[in-house]
This record gives sequence, C-alpha cells and structure tokens, in this order.
Amino acid sequence: MKAVRFIETGRPPEIHDVPVPQPGPGEVLLKVAGAGVCHSDLHILDDMEGFKGPFTLGHENAGWIAALGAGVTGWKEGDAVAVYGPWGCGHCHTCQLSAENYCENHASIPSFGGGLGSDGGMADYMLVPSSRLLVSLGSLDPVSAAPLSDAALTPYHAIKAALPLLTPETTVVVVGIGGLGHMAVQLLRALTPAQLVACDVDDAKLAHARELGVAHTINTRDAQAAADAIRALTGPRGAVLALDLVGAQTTVDLCVGIVGRGSRLSVVGLAGGVVHYAANSPPYGCQVSVPYWGSRTELMEVIAMAQSGHIHVDVETFPMAQAQEVYQRLREGRIRGRGVLVP
Amino acid sequence: MKAVRFIETGRPPEIHDVPVPQPGPGEVLLKVAGAGVCHSDLHILDDMEGFKGPFTLGHENAGWIAALGAGVTGWKEGDAVAVYGPWGCGHCHTCQLSAENYCENHASIPSFGGGLGSDGGMADYMLVPSSRLLVSLGSLDPVSAAPLSDAALTPYHAIKAALPLLTPETTVVVVGIGGLGHMAVQLLRALTPAQLVACDVDDAKLAHARELGVAHTINTRDAQAAADAIRALTGPRGAVLALDLVGAQTTVDLCVGIVGRGSRLSVVGLAGGVVHYAANSPPYGCQVSVPYWGSRTELMEVIAMAQSGHIHVDVETFPMAQAQEVYQRLREGRIRGRGVLVP
Amino acid sequence: MKAVRFIETGRPPEIHDVPVPQPGPGEVLLKVAGAGVCHSDLHILDDMEGFKGPFTLGHENAGWIAALGAGVTGWKEGDAVAVYGPWGCGHCHTCQLSAENYCENHASIPSFGGGLGSDGGMADYMLVPSSRLLVSLGSLDPVSAAPLSDAALTPYHAIKAALPLLTPETTVVVVGIGGLGHMAVQLLRALTPAQLVACDVDDAKLAHARELGVAHTINTRDAQAAADAIRALTGPRGAVLALDLVGAQTTVDLCVGIVGRGSRLSVVGLAGGVVHYAANSPPYGCQVSVPYWGSRTELMEVIAMAQSGHIHVDVETFPMAQAQEVYQRLREGRIRGRGVLVP
Amino acid sequence: MKAVRFIETGRPPEIHDVPVPQPGPGEVLLKVAGAGVCHSDLHILDDMEGFKGPFTLGHENAGWIAALGAGVTGWKEGDAVAVYGPWGCGHCHTCQLSAENYCENHASIPSFGGGLGSDGGMADYMLVPSSRLLVSLGSLDPVSAAPLSDAALTPYHAIKAALPLLTPETTVVVVGIGGLGHMAVQLLRALTPAQLVACDVDDAKLAHARELGVAHTINTRDAQAAADAIRALTGPRGAVLALDLVGAQTTVDLCVGIVGRGSRLSVVGLAGGVVHYAANSPPYGCQVSVPYWGSRTELMEVIAMAQSGHIHVDVETFPMAQAQEVYQRLREGRIRGRGVLVP
Repeated sequence: MKAVRFIETGRPPEIHDVPVPQPGPGEVLLKVAGAGVCHSDLHILDDMEGFKGPFTLGHENAGWIAALGAGVTGWKEGDAVAVYGPWGCGHCHTCQLSAENYCENHASIPSFGGGLGSDGGMADYMLVPSSRLLVSLGSLDPVSAAPLSDAALTPYHAIKAALPLLTPETTVVVVGIGGLGHMAVQLLRALTPAQLVACDVDDAKLAHARELGVAHTINTRDAQAAADAIRALTGPRGAVLALDLVGAQTTVDLCVGIVGRGSRLSVVGLAGGVVHYAANSPPYGCQVSVPYWGSRTELMEVIAMAQSGHIHVDVETFPMAQAQEVYQRLREGRIRGRGVLVP
Repeated sequence: MKAVRFIETGRPPEIHDVPVPQPGPGEVLLKVAGAGVCHSDLHILDDMEGFKGPFTLGHENAGWIAALGAGVTGWKEGDAVAVYGPWGCGHCHTCQLSAENYCENHASIPSFGGGLGSDGGMADYMLVPSSRLLVSLGSLDPVSAAPLSDAALTPYHAIKAALPLLTPETTVVVVGIGGLGHMAVQLLRALTPAQLVACDVDDAKLAHARELGVAHTINTRDAQAAADAIRALTGPRGAVLALDLVGAQTTVDLCVGIVGRGSRLSVVGLAGGVVHYAANSPPYGCQVSVPYWGSRTELMEVIAMAQSGHIHVDVETFPMAQAQEVYQRLREGRIRGRGVLVP
Repeated sequence: MKAVRFIETGRPPEIHDVPVPQPGPGEVLLKVAGAGVCHSDLHILDDMEGFKGPFTLGHENAGWIAALGAGVTGWKEGDAVAVYGPWGCGHCHTCQLSAENYCENHASIPSFGGGLGSDGGMADYMLVPSSRLLVSLGSLDPVSAAPLSDAALTPYHAIKAALPLLTPETTVVVVGIGGLGHMAVQLLRALTPAQLVACDVDDAKLAHARELGVAHTINTRDAQAAADAIRALTGPRGAVLALDLVGAQTTVDLCVGIVGRGSRLSVVGLAGGVVHYAANSPPYGCQVSVPYWGSRTELMEVIAMAQSGHIHVDVETFPMAQAQEVYQRLREGRIRGRGVLVP
Repeated sequence: MKAVRFIETGRPPEIHDVPVPQPGPGEVLLKVAGAGVCHSDLHILDDMEGFKGPFTLGHENAGWIAALGAGVTGWKEGDAVAVYGPWGCGHCHTCQLSAENYCENHASIPSFGGGLGSDGGMADYMLVPSSRLLVSLGSLDPVSAAPLSDAALTPYHAIKAALPLLTPETTVVVVGIGGLGHMAVQLLRALTPAQLVACDVDDAKLAHARELGVAHTINTRDAQAAADAIRALTGPRGAVLALDLVGAQTTVDLCVGIVGRGSRLSVVGLAGGVVHYAANSPPYGCQVSVPYWGSRTELMEVIAMAQSGHIHVDVETFPMAQAQEVYQRLREGRIRGRGVLVP
C-alpha cells in the first residue's frame, strides 16, 4: 500500500510502498478513512527532536475496523472508529484512568503514538496496538471525524480541567480562532453559560467565531486596547479562564494581563511563548498549565458532542497523492479549518 | 495603649501611644493575646510598595473578644478567637465563599488587612471590622495559636488545592522546613498517606522534619544530587506535588525538575524565583501556582487540626517592648519556629 | 403598610396593617417589587408543623434597597436586589461557604427565613437581617426576577451538585415541567451538552419543554412504557441524573427504575414519595439526595444566567389585594409559570 | 489441580479435580498464593440469585504470574500481583476510567468476576482474562495481601467518594468493626484528620478499634444512648460521613439519625436494612449511597497504603482442604480478621 512517510529531519514527506500490516494478538487493523494534517507534523518534518524515521505520518485518524487480532473482544469488522492518539504504557495509574497523554512511563516508551514515532494513518491501513485505543463513531462520517481526535480533543481537555471554575457569572477568553480555536468556542458554548470572548489578530477568524455564536470578539493586534476591552467585559474579577491556542509571547502576555486571582491560564499553542510566573503575576492563585492532548474518555465525550450536533469540524479533504502539496498549503496558512488526507 | 507602628518605608518599627479603638456597628474589639512576627513585616518595613504608614503592625493575631459593636450576634465577650488576616470586600462571589484572599475587588480596597495597611495586632487592642473575620479557638491558648492564622493557613491552602491529586501511591516534596515548612509537613502527614519528602539546605531543619515524623529528608545544597535522590523515591511518575516554601530560583528550579506530568507545583515562598513555563517544562499538564494565604473556612479547618492535636506551632514569645529586637533576630534567622509578641 | 399574613395553621392568609420596619445595625430595608407565590406557602397555611404565626408571607422576594442600617457597606439606596431565602446562622463553616440552606445550627434558629417564620416579602417593605443575604440584580426587572430566588435556585443547586457526572455522552431525565421544571430544563441546556429527556403526565407541559428546546419529551402516565422509552434513549448506562421535581411515589419509582450505577437521583419535589434504598435498587453506587433550596453564591450564578439570557421565568403578576384569590388559583393549578404578588 | 467449587445453590462447597487452565491471547495465568474467604460466598452457596454453578470460588485473590498469554506486555512470570475482582466489559466509559464495579454493560456480562460466576482463586491456578485486572504487589506477601482486593478496597471506595466532605473539623462514624471495619478505621486515620467514631455491638471489636488508634468507640446495643453519645461528639452539625458496614435495619436507622444536612451515608453492608429517604430524613442534602466494591486504580491505591504500612490485614490462613470447615467457622463468626485459603 502507499503511505506518506517521514524519512528524516529536514526532508519533506515522501510517498512509499509499504506492506499492509497484520494484527497480532490484541491488535486491530484499521482501514483508514481520513488522516488529519496537523501543524505538529511540520515540526516533526522540520526540526523537532526525538523522532527517528522512517515512519508513516498521520496522528489524527479514523476509519473502519478491517481485522481483529487474536483475543480482541467487543468490536467487529466494519465498525467506524476514531483512533486515540497519545499511546501510553496502558498499565500505570494514569493510563488506567485513560489519561495516556500523561502516561507515567512516557520517558521509556519508544513512540508517542501512531504518526509520532510509530506508523500512523496516512496510508490505506494502520495498525492500532490495542483495542483500548479505539472509540466508536456510530454513524459519524469517519473522514470529517478524524480531526476530532486532536483538534477537538486538545481544547476539550484544557477546558474540562477548568469547568468547576466556569460558573455562570464568569468570563472565558479564547485566543486564536483557527483549527483548535474554532472547536474551542463551540465546546465552550455547549459546556458553560460563562461569558465567552474570542480573540485573534485576523478579522476573518473573528467573523468565524461570530458565525459560531460568540457574542464578544476582539482583535488583539493592538494588545493594550485589546486588554482594556477584555477587562471592560470581565470587570474587576478578570477572566477566570484564558485559553491561549497560539502560545506566542504576545498572546501569553495578553493572557497573563487579563486573568484574575484564583483563575486558570492554559497555554495550548506551542509558538514559543513563555509564562514567567512570580509573586502576583499572573495574579495570586492563578493556575498556569501547558496541557497536552486529552484522555481516552475525553475523546469519547468529544465524539458524543459531535454526534449530538453540539460541535462540528470544518474539513477540507485531499487525496493522499497530494500530501506534499497539502503540507505546503498548511505551512502557508492556506487551509480552511482542518485538512484531511483521504487514502 | 502602646502599639508597634510602621511609620514609613526604610524606618524601623516604633512604639507609640495610640487610643484604644471603639467598635462601631458590626465591628469587634479584640484584646490581643499574641501577634506573630512574620518575614512579610520586614518587607513592609524595608522596601515593599503599596503600604502607607503609619499603622500598627501584626497580621497573625489572636486574643479574646473585648467588646461587640452594635448588631454583632453569635459571639460574646471573653471568647477566644483567631483573626482571619486577608480582609476582602466581603460581598463578591469569591468572598462569599470565604476566600477573601482572592477577593475580586482587591484592587479597590484600601488595605490588605490588619497590620497590612490597617491597624494590626501588635497592641493591647485591635479593631476587627466584621465578626465574619473571627474564628473560635475553643480551649486553644491564643498566644501559641496566633501563628496558625498565617504560618499554618498558608501551606494548608496550597495543600488543600492539591489533595485530589495526592492519592496514596504518589509523592509530595516540601522544600524549606522553616516556619511554614514545619507546619506543612505536619499538615501533610495528617491529610494524606502519600509519600512525603522534606528538603532544606540546613541539616538542623531536616532533623526537625524527622522529629515531626518525615521519613525521607534530603539536603538540597547539591541540587543535582538532591534531584536524583528525589527521583529515586518518586520513580518515573515524579512528584505529584512540589511545595516550594522558599521560592528562590534554586528551589523553583529544583521543583520544576522533579514534578511529573499532570502534577502541581505551588510556589508559596516569595524569595524572587520565577517559574519559566513553556512546552514540556515543567512537564505537560503540570499546574503551576503562586497561592496567597487562605480562606476563612480553611482557617477554621486549620484550627480544628490544632485542637485535635494533629498540628502544633513551635512558638517563642517576647514582650511587646522588645519588638525592634525581635525583628532584628528574625532578620538574622535567630528565632526558633515562630516569634510571637505578647502585649 | 399592608401585608399578607399567616395567622395560624388552617386559616387562609389575611391582609393586615403592620408598621414599616426600621433597619437596625447591619440590617437592610427592602422596598418590595414582587414576591413569588409558592406551593410551600400552601403547606404552611394548611398543615406544616414548625411555623408559629403571625408573620408576613413571601419567601421569593426582590425589590430595591430603601434604607441601610448602621454599618452596612457595599450597597446603596435604590440598588435592585434579590433576597436570598434560607437564612442560617451566618457563622458556621457551612454558612461561611454561603450554603445557609444547610446551616449547621438550623435546629436552634427561630426562623427558616423571611416568609418562613420571619416577616417576608408580601408587603410594601421587608426587613433583611444582613446585607450578606442580598444579590444584585443589575438591570433585571425585580418583579420577574423574584422567582429566580427559589424556582430557579432550587433546581440549579440540585443540578450543580451533579455536574461532574454530566459528561456529554450521558443522559439527564427531568420529571415534572412546572414552575421548577421549566427552569430546570433551561438550566440544563445551558450547563451541559448531556442528552436531556423531559417527563410529565401533562402534554401541555411537555409542549412547553419542547418550546424551551428539549428534544426528547415523554408522557409518564403509562409508567412502564415511559421507563422503556427512557431506557431506549439512555442505553444500558441508564440515566446519570434523574431530577424528580414532583416527588410523588410514582415519579420516585420511575426514577429509581431508570438511573444507572454510579448515577444520581435528586428528589426535589416533596409530594410524599419515598426512596427505599437497599442493595442494588437504586443501582449500586447511585447517590440519592433530597436537596433543599441553594446557596448564596448559587443565587448569584442563577441571576447571572438570567442576565445573560440563558434562562427566564414565565411570570403572571397580581396586586397584593388579590392574595387569597391567587393562593386559590395556585391550589387549583390555574397559574401559568410562577405567580408574583406586586405591592 | 484441586479446586473449591460451587455446585448449586443450597449445597456446600466441594473440592474437585479440574484441569489447569491455559492462558489465551491477552490472558494471564496466576499461581494462587491465597484466596480470601468472604461472607458473600455464603450468600452464593445458600441463596443468592444469579449464580449458576459449577465454578471455582474465591474472589479475593493474589499470587504470582505463572504464564502470559500471547500479546500481554508489561508483566513477567513470577511477578507478585493482586487480582482486581469485579470484571466489567472493559470498553465502556466507566470501565475505561477503571471503575469496572459500575460497568455500564454489567447486565449483559455473563459473570461478575472470578469466583462470582467464572472460576476464582480457590485452586492452584486461576485464569485472569486480561492483564488490566492485575495490580503489582511489589514486595508485599501475596497471602496476606489477598483480602486487600475486597476487605480494604470496598471501604476505601466508599471513603474516597466522601473525602472532599471530610474536612478536619468534621466527624466520621464507622458502624461495624469486623473484616471491612478494621480496614475502614485504618484507612480513615491515614486519609483524614476528621474526628473518627467507631461503633459496634461487640466490646471486643471496639477494643480492636482502639488498638488501631481510634479515640472514640461506642457500643450501639442501646441505640438511643449510642445516638446521643455520637451527637455529643459531633455537635449540631452531625456526622458528615456515616459508613454502615453492617447494613442491618438497626444500623441503618442509627446512621440516618446521626448524619447532618449536606452529609453522606454509605451503606456498604448488605444485611437487609433499607434507607427510607423522604423530605428531611435523612436530613436535607444528605447523599445516600450503597456503593459496590471499588475501581482498578483504587485497588492500586489501597495496595500502596499497605506497602507504606498505613494499613494491614489481620489474616488467619488455612489449607485448601479445610475449605468446608473454614466456611463453617465464618458462618459461626469464629474467624479473627480475614480467613485466607492457601493452596
């Protein structure tokens, strides 16, 4: 079968012929419906340490079960499923609670997941090492559901940790209304009546947020004016959750300036920004976190929200042969919503 | 009456005659039993911004009710009480949940509390602006109970926020076994069966921790060796709570290096250290916080632990006339446990 | 001024002249805008033990501050406010967390609140014993906001306790779409993406639920068919929250039959039904609770939801002189939404 | 190999020769070190519905891994392990969070677990259907660790759910200081500084509680006097957790009478008592629950507490050949702590 492969750092992805894998005991073979095209892949291709090729790319995957390894129960061929991405040891206390994204043994595991060290989903078939990593899609289309496993799961995880703080009289600020951000605002509208403020430097993105039902949108090109406008909305309490999906120094600094005491600042985007936390800045009692992806049960929850129509991903599909071109478009910011490769 | 007064920045405290205050409606007059002598006072005296004298020092106060203002119910003269220190607006959502330490209107309140802008407890009497700021001591001695309102409440607040993480198979690391630290280890031993590791650069402090029942103590003068020793105790999961009661750059860096994913790092000490949080350092999912003091109900809980014998403060008492001398001893590190001024 | 008074058990309410109260230290005088007419009043008038007249009825009150007693700060005359109903001691650990509905000293307090032992809001003016019992209404109309303090607060309290269970793949069942129920479904739609099922024996009430956006409505006259229909929606997990706002034996039995393991059953209505809990019925791990009213901060949260348009009360207003008639209509089920007496 | 078998209801257990099982893909073969002898077995043997023999008894099992089925990773032969008892589907949201005791598909699963429908641990070897059901014992002796999987896990689960309520100024009441109760008091002493009251009708059991460090013990033969004595200890707040490990009508009634508003009543023992919950009895806001066993991660936590010395099981061991005799002794209350059959 054809597969989009990472060969080595600094080299563009290449399409190679690789054998169709066979599922061993406990494993599952997936017929891929779609594989999301993610910014992280560009980091892997360009410069990120810790990855040794070659392997097949694609860590946002969904499709249909093609074959079950010996001993796998509870699933059958043809079931539409999403693949949970961050593969942990499966044994530790944290993995047993389904939070493999924080696996306690991550340092001694050879791969971060399919498409992240192991073979991923940019191919006709993909081997999933355990049925515990599958989530049923029911009647959802696996092509457009593939990005739920990352673009929706990642902000959902960050938001869920903050939910007890998000009582109805509070304010949440989301910075960056792109792939993750357009999911974040939908998630927040469904999960909490807290006041929602969407920020971006791009007016088109803010218009997108308004289409998704966000009442308050603020362009942050003028950082000082933006902070003043946010504070006018939050009042003296400040934002109770600032969700930075960009993670540049400017967005981090904006968030530090508008959260209140006893609040939460989650930096999900990894654009190089640093939170310098000392004494009362961010304000006392603020919990600062850089979360990573989400848990298996959180993926089940995200998929339930897609099934009930609370969220949907804007998807642009491409045939696998255009992989190099798609990555180039992603690099140039020319993909609307999320790009998905279809084998 | 005599009172130990802050006059202006850069000037040592002075003892002056001031009138005995009279309680207005809703207020309570306290006959002071003891007022704790705290490092923060040195900052106020030396260089901290935001304080305008003159006012009476002392923000760790306990004593007996001397008079009730009009409309105060539920208390009577002679009741032994501790005074809750961080005075908020009393009206906002956060204050209504008793967490005046994170009052939403703190920026528009003229004083941080008694001894912190308003007249505090280093005098024969002290005016408390509302009975909501009192906690009954029952049969506890108010002199030795005074420091509970800060030296015990502050680490208790930081620990309580982390308790859901502190399941029995986890590890907590406490850095700095001084005034707050010797309370923190007692609190942790009573609140959780998690493995407890106490760190300090002073072997005498570590001996103190062992006297208080801590099994694992590590001298952190050699930071690398200390980190290795801690990791040998935590295993791959790392510490689930690192409680830095010093807050210098060296202690902050130590803590950043030994906490695990999905863990918590609380920097309580304010010795100038900064947590630089980006990507996976501290590890993904770690919640970093600089907490401040505690809530009214948390003070009730701390006092209950003293009443049941789970915690006790090591106290050294001094007559009020020796105030200047005591501050000098505090500055030189020559007070064992907590110093308390007795009118 | 005129006031609607409870005289003694078994006697209808009477309108009497009473003096306008004057606020003492810490107290606040309210100019009443509206007082909700509640089923509990019928119990007080008819047969409930523990109430000794005469006192003015009305425990769902809102209006404007008319005068502040000595020592009251943070409020000014003319502020529109709702009055928090269940008055506790104000001092205990529970009251300090604002949950006066569960005041630890309730057994030794002479009154349950204004209109419930003390003079309530069915009069031109009402005395509120402490400013801690006021919540700002901002620009909300105090007449239609009065019922928020009970008809919305009571289900909100029951729902909030269950929120951590209400992940998006779960189902909530609300039984009884009357005064509290029409608020409960609005609250749930704003607070959670969980699947919502509304039940009643009255098709008009179910139509009301559909108008409020509920997708699944089930008439429960045929209890067995209703239970089957609910189980078809929940799947094998069963309902994760069953909220019984009727509390008759038939509704309680329905709820017991459709909740799942590890779920929650809240019986809010007090129509005499009893949960007989033994072994696996309700299923293992189910938490059964009969909650009472809500906390001060929960009232703040409910009012925030009304301010942001997430919820609204259907109100029918009447002049105070028609009090007897209104109670009669309430008794006969002839009030749409909530009746409010206007002085 | 020899195995202690349940044949059919009403027939004593019999020792039969059965083949040593072989582990298929994903399965694990356990060499049994010990199998706890539990009251539930008597119910199965005597009268409980839902069990169809023959199968090998024993649902509290520990031992060493004898063989790994194909595809099992993360374990090796010889590892000392406890077996998690309540086997769920492993796939549902609840099982993925490790709480197989509340498996959403429990109604369609043929067995409740090993010794509870499937072959259990009263034999030389036992087949465990998945490695997810194993917890490492480290250096703990598997013979005395076997009862941790039920006698400690079951009260731990009930206590853990209540921990957020168990602040230091509260009171917990444990009723029944037998197999589960002597673990419950140890668990509570390690997990919370809340005041602990132990109740039983047998003075020897109360003496045992005092040996385990419980300060307050009350004999409940005189129910009224006992309730008065408990209320004298709790004050007006009442108990915040009542843990009924007997579950008879007398103990349930005692607990209903001493818990406070907003508290928790967990009926763990299944001796036929029923909680009749209506209006204010148990008091408003009380959460009543009949929990069942515990989760996989809770078993990890319990085992960590045994490893750190916070808890230990009093064990009396017997050779397997004495199975009938041991059950007879259990029936007559002549086993101290927990009986364990050793192959």
